[in-house]
This record gives sequence, structure tokens and C-alpha cells, in this order.
Amino acid sequence: MSEASVVSVAFQGEPGAFSFSAARKFFGPEIHVQPFEQFRQVFEALAAGIVTHAVVPIENSLYGSIHENYDHILQHGFKITGETTIRIAHQLITRPGTSFEDIRRVFSHPVALDQCRQFFREFPHLTPVSFYDTAGSVKMLMQQQFPDAAAIASEAAAEIYGGLILKKNIEDNENNSTRFFLLTKQMKRAEKFHSADFWKTSLVFATANAPGALFKAMACFALRDLNLTKIESRPIREKPWEYLFYVDVVGCIQDRSVRKAIHHLGELTSFLKVLGSYRPTT
Amino acid sequence: MSEASVVSVAFQGEPGAFSFSAARKFFGPEIHVQPFEQFRQVFEALAAGIVTHAVVPIENSLYGSIHENYDHILQHGFKITGETTIRIAHQLITRPGTSFEDIRRVFSHPVALDQCRQFFREFPHLTPVSFYDTAGSVKMLMQQQFPDAAAIASEAAAEIYGGLILKKNIEDNENNSTRFFLLTKQMKRAEKFHSADFWKTSLVFATANAPGALFKAMACFALRDLNLTKIESRPIREKPWEYLFYVDVVGCIQDRSVRKAIHHLGELTSFLKVLGSYRPTT
Repeated sequence: MSEASVVSVAFQGEPGAFSFSAARKFFGPEIHVQPFEQFRQVFEALAAGIVTHAVVPIENSLYGSIHENYDHILQHGFKITGETTIRIAHQLITRPGTSFEDIRRVFSHPVALDQCRQFFREFPHLTPVSFYDTAGSVKMLMQQQFPDAAAIASEAAAEIYGGLILKKNIEDNENNSTRFFLLTKQMKRAEKFHSADFWKTSLVFATANAPGALFKAMACFALRDLNLTKIESRPIREKPWEYLFYVDVVGCIQDRSVRKAIHHLGELTSFLKVLGSYRPTT
Repeated sequence: MSEASVVSVAFQGEPGAFSFSAARKFFGPEIHVQPFEQFRQVFEALAAGIVTHAVVPIENSLYGSIHENYDHILQHGFKITGETTIRIAHQLITRPGTSFEDIRRVFSHPVALDQCRQFFREFPHLTPVSFYDTAGSVKMLMQQQFPDAAAIASEAAAEIYGGLILKKNIEDNENNSTRFFLLTKQMKRAEKFHSADFWKTSLVFATANAPGALFKAMACFALRDLNLTKIESRPIREKPWEYLFYVDVVGCIQDRSVRKAIHHLGELTSFLKVLGSYRPTT
């Protein structure tokens, strides 16, 4: 059995959710997926070996980092082996046979409905109706015989459930995108590494509560001319004035300068964890 | 007419929403508020002078920074004049007369329902029902005569609409809290400033795309022994490899060292905006 055929991916949401699209970007359309209701369950499935990988959103261009998933990654000690970004584009989807003139009600998750306000202003005879999931609203539409209903969900949701896209990209903000991590239990065996390739390495660390502690930590990278693509502080609840820092540095853990920077950082931090090195999938 | 009597606050959501609780923390329970459906409308109301202040969430301990509201603040050039943090605690609320044994359906915003999964696991005979708003579901409950329904919302929502709290703090994660900014159109006339008081100053800046640019920017603070309580990078969509940085520094813009640090920072950045100096309300 080849390795590819046993790959399976846990994600949160229904098939057709944006996490599902991210999983297909990593592994292609034939990937075997296992949907879960909650992020917690996604991580537990990977921990239990029910799946080989998990795909989770880690930050959104409008709504920031999803700290909950950083927490789960740290708690389980999983490794990031891939990264991709999905544009959050919403489609107006109906059962084949329903025309735009028939529609009165539009089902979707309230967050998605909220991201299509311009559309509802333009067509005030359409009533938004809250549903538990975007892709789930397409699934429901195909099962029910509502003559007056549409759903708002992804292109993948339309494809999976056989829905028809009546209007494309009806979201208000075209700058809405979500970054996803591909996770495994253990770091992969080193693949052929070319330092010319574009890699990122994600770290989490905490500094002692001392003036300039973060500045010194940043020096580990700056002194080695290593670029950062992300830095974010997060208060540690139980310890006022102490912070976790999420940092993404350009380079692979196999790069000598990245390795040295991380060793150096270890001297200056009270906690340090390498979450993984990966090549972004575009 | 005293100044206090003309203060009015725009916020997003229904009365009883967490933003409403934040407004009351700033101004007391008698504050005149004006609710809006969308953040965009909240900012427009302040711009148009319909209200004197706006209160908006800016980051959540589990879900990160609300970039959308940073964007609105920058776009309108509003000033931050206050900050407070509200713990997101969910209450099970019914009409007086309904007992826990009567309940079969529980209405709330899906995000709130999702944050009470443990509760629904414990009482599997209760069905969560999505509604457009947390506080709105209490309002609806009081108007309808459902004998079998409850809502999940804040303590303030129960109080405002005359609901009864049957179970307190049913949220899964007690570490869920949201930080709010109080905004005005112009910086207030300098109030009596004691450098011994605890102040924060919030900045947004962009650095040129050069190695070590952020490190140099951080030096402006570290060299003056100024502590940061937040640093966060945000990619600038139109400019690959360039970033906005959100920084909160401990100190008031009237502190000499803070002023000097900001002048220094201006030499090193391609964009710099002081969003405001404020004393956090606890």
C-alpha cells in the first residue's frame, strides 16, 4: 500500500467547508477526509491515530489568529508540515431548477450571511435565514423541496452536493482569506531540502518578564538576517505581564542560521517550542 | 447641560450584548446607547456626530484581534480614549415561570451555542437553536409564549429584558474574554496626567521592507526601557512582504520617553499613527 492511499485528513465542518477545500489543496480532490463538529475533536482524532493528518484554520485576514488552535497544537505537541491560504469567497447556490426569481429565503451560517450584507441590501426581497453550517445549508437544500430557498456556501459545497451557483463571489470583502495549517503527529522524515526553496518555521516562545526581553529575542533573528513573516504576542492568563509569542521565520529548521537562531533564542526564553518547518502550498 | 448628560455610545449588537456591558463599564448603567447591526454603521454614526463615543471589541482571548475594527479606526482617524476587558460568560435564561424541567429548546447565536458544548452534552434532551443574536434571543423569548424555550446570553441581557437566570456561567472556557476600545472623534483635551498612573498608548506602523526593520523599530522602545503589552504583525494585502504592526506601549503620550520613542520610530517607519493614550478601566 503506497503512503498516499492511506492519507486521511480530519477537519472541522461539513464536506464543502473551507477547511475541506484546504485539505484538497494539500492532497488533491480524491483525498479521504473525516469531518468533525469541533476543533477539539479534530485534534483528538489525530492524537488517536484515526487520521494521519489534520487541517485547521490558524488565522483570518479580517478576524485575526485562532488562538484556540494554537492551544490545541501546543497541548498535543503536533507538528506543522504544510500551510496554505484559502480566499473566503461566498456563492449563492440553489437546487437545479430553482431560478433567481423564485428565491425568497437564503440559508447559511450567520457569519457567512453577515459577510454578504451588500448582496442583501441589493436584493431586499431576500431574507437571510441562520443555519448551523455553510456547506450544511447546501446539503439541506438538496434534501428538502423548498421551492423558494437558496444557500450561501463555497464553490466546493456546490460541487459536492450538486448545487447550482446562481451568483458568484457575493461576499462584501474580497480581502477575506484564511490561512490553514496541515498537522501531523510527528515531524516527517527529512525530505530533500534545497535551501533555495521557500520555507517557513513556526515557533512559540515565552520570555521572562524583564524589560527588553522581546527585543533580545528578536535579536536572535535580526543578527542572522533572518526575516519574520509573523510576530504576535498573546497574554498568558495565569501570569499577568507574561506573554506567549507566535513567530514565523523565513527558512527551514535544516538551515544552519535558523538552527543557530533557535539555539540562541533558547538561552533567552522561559519556554520555546518549534511547531514545524514547512513549504507553503500556493 | 453637563458633559456627562450628552454622552451617547454607539455599539454593535442588541442591548445586552457584551459591547453594551463594556459601554456601561465606561459610563455607568444610565448611559445612553445606540445599537447598530454592523461595525461599519457604528463607525459611521460616530463620524456623523450622531453619538459622542463608540465602543468596539478589538481582540478576544481565544479568537485574536478583530482586524476589521483596526481598519475602521484607521480609516476614520478616531482616537482611543479608553479600554476595558469583559469576560464572556454565558447564562441560561428563561421567562419567569419556566422551570429547567420545562425546557427543550435553547436559542442563541451559534457562536454562543458553540461555546456551551459541555452544557449540551450534560443535558442531551436540550436542542440548541440558532438565532441571529444572543441578547436578541432573550428579547424574543420574552415576547413569545414558548413554554419550552430558554436562551443563552449575558447577565445584562437577562436584566434588561426581565429574564430569569436558571444556570450561571455555562460556557466551556472560562478564559474567554474580549478587550474593548472606547473611541471618540478627537483626542480629549489633556486631563490631569500623573505619570504614576497606569497608561497605555496604542500605535500602528509599517516598516520598509528591509531586513531587521522591525528589530530597529523595537529598539525605539527597548532603548528607553518602555514595555510593550502587545505586538502583532498583519500582512498588507496589496504589498507582499510588507506588514502593519499593532503595538501597545506602557505609558502616556505625555510621558517624555514615550514621545521621544514615537519620534524615533517615525524616522524608521513608512507609516505611523498614534491611535490614542488611555487608562484601562478594570
